[in-house]
Amino acid sequence: QQTFEINSDPHTRLNILTGERVLVSPHRSKRPWQGQVEDDNQEQRPVYDPKCYLCPTNERADGDVNPDYKESFVFVNDFSALLKDTPTADINDDELFIAESEKGICKVIAFSPRHDLTLPEMSVPAIKAVVDVWQSEFADLAKYDWIKYIQIFENKGAIMGCSNPHPHGQIWSQNHVPVELQKESKNQQKYFDQHGTTMLSAYVQAELKKQERIIEENDSFVALVPFWASWPYETMIVSKRSVQNILAFTEKEKEELAAILKLLTTRYDNLFNTSFPYSAGMHQAPVNSGDFPEWHWHMHFYPPLLRSATVKKFMVGYEMLANPQRDITPEFAAQQLRNCSTTHYKNV
Amino acid sequence: QQTFEINSDPHTRLNILTGERVLVSPHRSKRPWQGQVEDDNQEQRPVYDPKCYLCPTNERADGDVNPDYKESFVFVNDFSALLKDTPTADINDDELFIAESEKGICKVIAFSPRHDLTLPEMSVPAIKAVVDVWQSEFADLAKYDWIKYIQIFENKGAIMGCSNPHPHGQIWSQNHVPVELQKESKNQQKYFDQHGTTMLSAYVQAELKKQERIIEENDSFVALVPFWASWPYETMIVSKRSVQNILAFTEKEKEELAAILKLLTTRYDNLFNTSFPYSAGMHQAPVNSGDFPEWHWHMHFYPPLLRSATVKKFMVGYEMLANPQRDITPEFAAQQLRNCSTTHYKNV
Ligand SMILES: O=P(O)(O)O[C@H]1O[C@H](CO)[C@@H](O)[C@H](O)[C@H]1O
Ligand SMILES: O=P(O)(O)O[C@H]1O[C@H](CO)[C@@H](O)[C@H](O)[C@H]1O
Repeated sequence: QQTFEINSDPHTRLNILTGERVLVSPHRSKRPWQGQVEDDNQEQRPVYDPKCYLCPTNERADGDVNPDYKESFVFVNDFSALLKDTPTADINDDELFIAESEKGICKVIAFSPRHDLTLPEMSVPAIKAVVDVWQSEFADLAKYDWIKYIQIFENKGAIMGCSNPHPHGQIWSQNHVPVELQKESKNQQKYFDQHGTTMLSAYVQAELKKQERIIEENDSFVALVPFWASWPYETMIVSKRSVQNILAFTEKEKEELAAILKLLTTRYDNLFNTSFPYSAGMHQAPVNSGDFPEWHWHMHFYPPLLRSATVKKFMVGYEMLANPQRDITPEFAAQQLRNCSTTHYKNV
Repeated sequence: QQTFEINSDPHTRLNILTGERVLVSPHRSKRPWQGQVEDDNQEQRPVYDPKCYLCPTNERADGDVNPDYKESFVFVNDFSALLKDTPTADINDDELFIAESEKGICKVIAFSPRHDLTLPEMSVPAIKAVVDVWQSEFADLAKYDWIKYIQIFENKGAIMGCSNPHPHGQIWSQNHVPVELQKESKNQQKYFDQHGTTMLSAYVQAELKKQERIIEENDSFVALVPFWASWPYETMIVSKRSVQNILAFTEKEKEELAAILKLLTTRYDNLFNTSFPYSAGMHQAPVNSGDFPEWHWHMHFYPPLLRSATVKKFMVGYEMLANPQRDITPEFAAQQLRNCSTTHYKNV
């Protein structure tokens, strides 16, 4: 073989957001799998579960009783990783032992009163109501001037550490900018300083021209498999408009975000005919720390499954110690997702 | 509450090797767990398994037959992520699509002919034989002048993506330095330039004085829970001598590395009375690229278990999108490991 072939030869790709590379080994997807097989998660859930701490009218760990809510329901996490009243401290012992106190607010959002649903099974207006809550919660948290970053996310599926199948997400907000966001800030700023446009607007335009990794598109958003995806079916939703955070979204944009969320997660479920697990979350500019014209709102989806409803990609060993690694190409993953129907498999 | 208490208040700690922080939320370890429960992996394995592709005299995927080996056995991975003959290529499309070909050699090392053993169940001389192979394989791979980094590692347990329980490790070597190593290079160099000693020699001395996170110590090595550990029971073995890679180890050091490996992994198994899963691997200076006096050999252990043989820590959602997070403190983890016996539970 004389010339390099990106579809079959091992190579690295640069994640332009983090500045870190992923190793792509396309030929390796042929290896057989005799390792761990996951539960395929096909259980039927009731509309209401009397033991679920997220269902309407049920009691939670701290004794609070949930209201009989009809759309979504937000409360402070009963086991918050960050607390509001942590005293300030800054430790530096010989440049070897460096620590700092961190304070924050962690919230939980039930997406629906229905215990048996997930985002792809909800209607677009019902998802739009969730987007509205994300926006209003973001606005409320940003009112605390000491909060510098707000992480909106969802862990879906037991395999992703989700301890309750009732559809819900979380918001963790805190007084420093977390490490992954610092990386994305730095690289977006560098690009903006050099080109005067956001990196992701240039990237989205280039992807729309290539049409190799695009999954969905509407007037306001694009869903695609990024060129540098690490997880097998990793995707990203990017707004066409360069906005720093969710507060900038108009009614139309919120409707279209709901619509693209439904389409993308439906394709995910249809890929392996399973409730497709993932961790997903928005990346947005820091708050209460000035203006960030380089920051471009986007949402990452990190799903663990690789070959089927039960065989996942393990990011272990080499990946933890040295470098993220993937087996199938992002282009193959995009093709697979494009081939999926946008009618949910449970409704066929 | 007026003053910050590191044992109970949320805070971040700096990983001085990577330059990235971990969020520590000690109070959170009290939350109940209703999420995914793993298989506790208590199966009895035979000494020899006719279907195992690592057992002596068995046939492998590519048709090769394993020799009737008596200690360890090394071969090129039948499904290597990196290949020797990948053509060179360097792609940069508008600073948005950046890729580069990567070539390398991936090897597998069976640690023992016995299908039923793991490192803690092997004798110190048998582990020493594995250390000898790591050293000689490192020397052999470093002879290829295009190889710039050699990653020696082990994935132990199905939960860590290990597809065969026969005790074995891997070596991936390649023509660029992977991202995690670049981070550690940068920070070790910065420290060395400022202080004239390696960062890890200063760190080990400070930890030996504090005696808060030390698990094991002998003349040549220390095993400890690093101040900045991300995984619940993450540990690190560090050589007392500042050496750049495994080639520098004397006979005595290799024996003591074997001894501390046995003690540490035995404590791990005894923690939850299970064959304790982890990904472990050495971090060493790049090869064939000059001298790295700032580089200090060490070995990381990243184990996923948190509360028991079946409940692991999920590094998902917030952790993937924003920042690694842990629930128990590194000091508590060290105390738990120190409380464990060094006699393997299967022999009691
Ligand atoms: O090579 P194995 O053991 O089949 O595979 C395992 O280790 C590799 C290196 O850490 C990972 O890339 C794989 O995801 C994992 O399943
Ligand atoms: O808060 P939950 O859903 O109980 O917990 C889950 O999400 C958190 C945030 O990503 C993680 O820290 C936990 O490890 C995971 O189990």
